[in-house]
Amino acid sequence: MKLKNDLFLRACKRQPVEKTPIWIMRQAGRYLPEYRAIRAKSDFLTLCKTPDLAAEVTIQPVDIIGVDAAIIFSDILVIPEAMGMKLEIEEGRGPVFEHPIRSSEDAAMLKQIDPHKELSYVMKALKVTKKGLAGRVPLIGFSGSPWTLLTYMVEGKGSKTFSTIKKFIYNQNELTHQILDKIAVAVADYLSAQIESGANAVQIFDTWGGLLSPDEYAEYSLTYIEKVISLIKRKEEPVIVFSKGVHSNIKAISKCGADVVGLDWTFDIGKTRKKIGNRAALQGNLDPAILYAPVDKIQYEAKKILDAFGDAPGHIFNLGHGIHPDMEPEKAKALVDFVHSESKKIRGYKSDKKNKHK
Amino acid sequence: MKLKNDLFLRACKRQPVEKTPIWIMRQAGRYLPEYRAIRAKSDFLTLCKTPDLAAEVTIQPVDIIGVDAAIIFSDILVIPEAMGMKLEIEEGRGPVFEHPIRSSEDAAMLKQIDPHKELSYVMKALKVTKKGLAGRVPLIGFSGSPWTLLTYMVEGKGSKTFSTIKKFIYNQNELTHQILDKIAVAVADYLSAQIESGANAVQIFDTWGGLLSPDEYAEYSLTYIEKVISLIKRKEEPVIVFSKGVHSNIKAISKCGADVVGLDWTFDIGKTRKKIGNRAALQGNLDPAILYAPVDKIQYEAKKILDAFGDAPGHIFNLGHGIHPDMEPEKAKALVDFVHSESKKIRGYKSDKKNKHK
Repeated sequence: MKLKNDLFLRACKRQPVEKTPIWIMRQAGRYLPEYRAIRAKSDFLTLCKTPDLAAEVTIQPVDIIGVDAAIIFSDILVIPEAMGMKLEIEEGRGPVFEHPIRSSEDAAMLKQIDPHKELSYVMKALKVTKKGLAGRVPLIGFSGSPWTLLTYMVEGKGSKTFSTIKKFIYNQNELTHQILDKIAVAVADYLSAQIESGANAVQIFDTWGGLLSPDEYAEYSLTYIEKVISLIKRKEEPVIVFSKGVHSNIKAISKCGADVVGLDWTFDIGKTRKKIGNRAALQGNLDPAILYAPVDKIQYEAKKILDAFGDAPGHIFNLGHGIHPDMEPEKAKALVDFVHSESKKIRGYKSDKKNKHK
Repeated sequence: MKLKNDLFLRACKRQPVEKTPIWIMRQAGRYLPEYRAIRAKSDFLTLCKTPDLAAEVTIQPVDIIGVDAAIIFSDILVIPEAMGMKLEIEEGRGPVFEHPIRSSEDAAMLKQIDPHKELSYVMKALKVTKKGLAGRVPLIGFSGSPWTLLTYMVEGKGSKTFSTIKKFIYNQNELTHQILDKIAVAVADYLSAQIESGANAVQIFDTWGGLLSPDEYAEYSLTYIEKVISLIKRKEEPVIVFSKGVHSNIKAISKCGADVVGLDWTFDIGKTRKKIGNRAALQGNLDPAILYAPVDKIQYEAKKILDAFGDAPGHIFNLGHGIHPDMEPEKAKALVDFVHSESKKIRGYKSDKKNKHK
C-alpha cells in the first residue's frame, strides 16, 4: 500500500521533505487518557500480547497527536522472555526477572528464538496495526540493543549503580561476549520478522549504552549493534540507533550502518550534524521535560532545534527520551503542530494559508 | 605547616610532578570496615556534625589507601539545612527534605547563612583534621553546586525523572534564578570559610548538571558556578569543578575560572585534554565499577588513562564518580599503588627500586 504520509521515511533516507516529520518516543502511553482507559482493563504484558489492543494503542497518537509515524506498542523485554526468562512486570516497580543470568549455567538455558513462534503476537499486532493505519503513516518496529537487554537480564531489575552487570562483564568477560552474540542474533531475527510483518523502519533502543566508558561502549554495545544491523533482512527499511548518553562514541555510531542516529537532549544537534557530516540522518532531541513548560517556551526550544539542524535533509524531530507519563497531551499536540508549521518555513516551502500570518 | 606531600596541589596548578597524585571520590565511606565501625555507633548526620568523628573518617583513607589528598567528610545538603530546610536522612532511602521548595513563599523562608555559625561543625572538623593530618597530605573542602543543591531542595528527595525540578524551572523561571543566586552566595561563603579553616583546595560537586540540555546547563548551572568561583575568598587554593555527564559544555566549563575540571568515566581524557587545551588541569576518570575487576584489568584500564593524558602537567587521577559502597578496599589500594608506580615511568622519573622489574 502506498503511504499517504512518507515524510518520516524520506527524512530517514536523507531525501528532501517539505516539512520535518515528528514522532515521540513512548507516544503510545500513559500520558494519553485514551491509553489509560484501555490499560485500566488489562495489565501491561497482556496489552503487549493482545494484538488488537496493542494495535489500538499504537494508532491512538496518530489520531490524537498527529505524529508522522506510529511505533508498535510493545516492550524491549519480550526478547529475553522469548529466550526463556520468566518476566514479571510489577506495578510501580517495573519489570523484574525472577532468575537473572549470573553464570554460564544460567546462560546455557537461553534458547535461540523463532520470532514467528514465540513472538507471533508482535507480528500479529504489526499486521493489525498496518491494516488500521491504512497507509496514513509508516509503522516503526523496535528492539532493545543486545547490551541493554543483557543489562536487564543480568541485573534482573532496574538499578541505581548497575554494579551487578559491571561485576559480570569484568569477571566473566568471555561469557559476556557469548551471550551478547546470542542476543544479537535473536534481535536481528526479531527485527527481520518485524519488517517481514510490515514494519517500515526499525529502531534499536540502547538505553544503557551511557553506563559505559568509550572503549567499553565500543566493545560491549556498538559491536553487537553493528552485528544486528549486518544481519537484519531488509530491503529499504531504515534502521535507527538510539544510544542514550553516549557522547564520546557518537561519530563511531554514525558509521555503524544505521540510517538514523537518535540523540538525547544533552546534545547540540547543530554541532553534532557538523561532527558526523552526512553519514546518517539525526533524530531528536527536545528535552522531554520541556513539555512541562508553557507553549511559547516549547515553541522557542523546538525552533532552536529546527534552526540548529537547518534545512539539510535528514532530520526527524523527536524528544530526547520518552514522553513523561504525567504530561498533558495538549502539549505534545502543540509541539507536533509547531514543528510542522515552523519547519515548512525553514525548508523553504510556503506555509499553509492558515499559518501564513503567524 | 609545610606539606610533606603536595603532589595534588602542584598538579592542580599544572606544575610538574614526579608522579600523578590520586584521590578517590567518596574515599571516606562505607567500603572501608574502619568507617563502618564508626558509623555503627552513630547515624550519618551525627557523624557529619561531630568534628572528632568526621576528622577520624576523613583521615582513614590516607592511612589505609595511601591517597594524596584528604577530603573532609560531610554532605552537600548541609547548606540547604543551614538555610533553614529540615533535613532527614532515612536509612536505605537517602536524604529527604520534608518541606521542599515549591513556591516563592517557600523560597522566602531560605535565610542567608553565616558558615562560621550554622556550619561551625564543618569548620571545626576541618581544623581537627588538619591537626590529625599533620601536613601529610592536603585537605579538600567541598560543596554542592547551586544547581545541584536546588535540584534536591525542589525535588525533596532523589528522583528518576526529575520532573518536579524541571516543572519548577520552566514555570517559575524568575524565582529559580533568584534562589540560585541566593544559594550561590551561600556556597561561596561556605567555601571561603572552609579555606579560612584550613582547606587547601575546594571542589564543587555538580552531580545533576547532566540533567540539562546544553543551553539550560549554561543558564542554570554554569552561570552560578562562575558566580561562586568569583566570590570565593582565597589565596592560591585551587577550585575543582565536577559536573557529571556534561559533555556538550566541557569547553565552557574549562573557562569558568576553575583550576581543575573533573571528568566522569564517559569521557576520553586524552581527547578532552586536546579539546580544552592548557586552560585547566583534569581530574579523573576511571569507571568506579572497574574496581570490581581483577587487579590486572584495573591496572590495564588505569594505564590507558595515564597514557591518554600523557606526561603534560595537570592530571589528578580519580574515579569518574564515587567509589561503590560494596567495593573491596584492597582494590582501591591496588589502584593507588599502580597509579603512583606507573606514572613515575610516564613522567620520566626513575621508579622505586622495588618497582623496577615490574
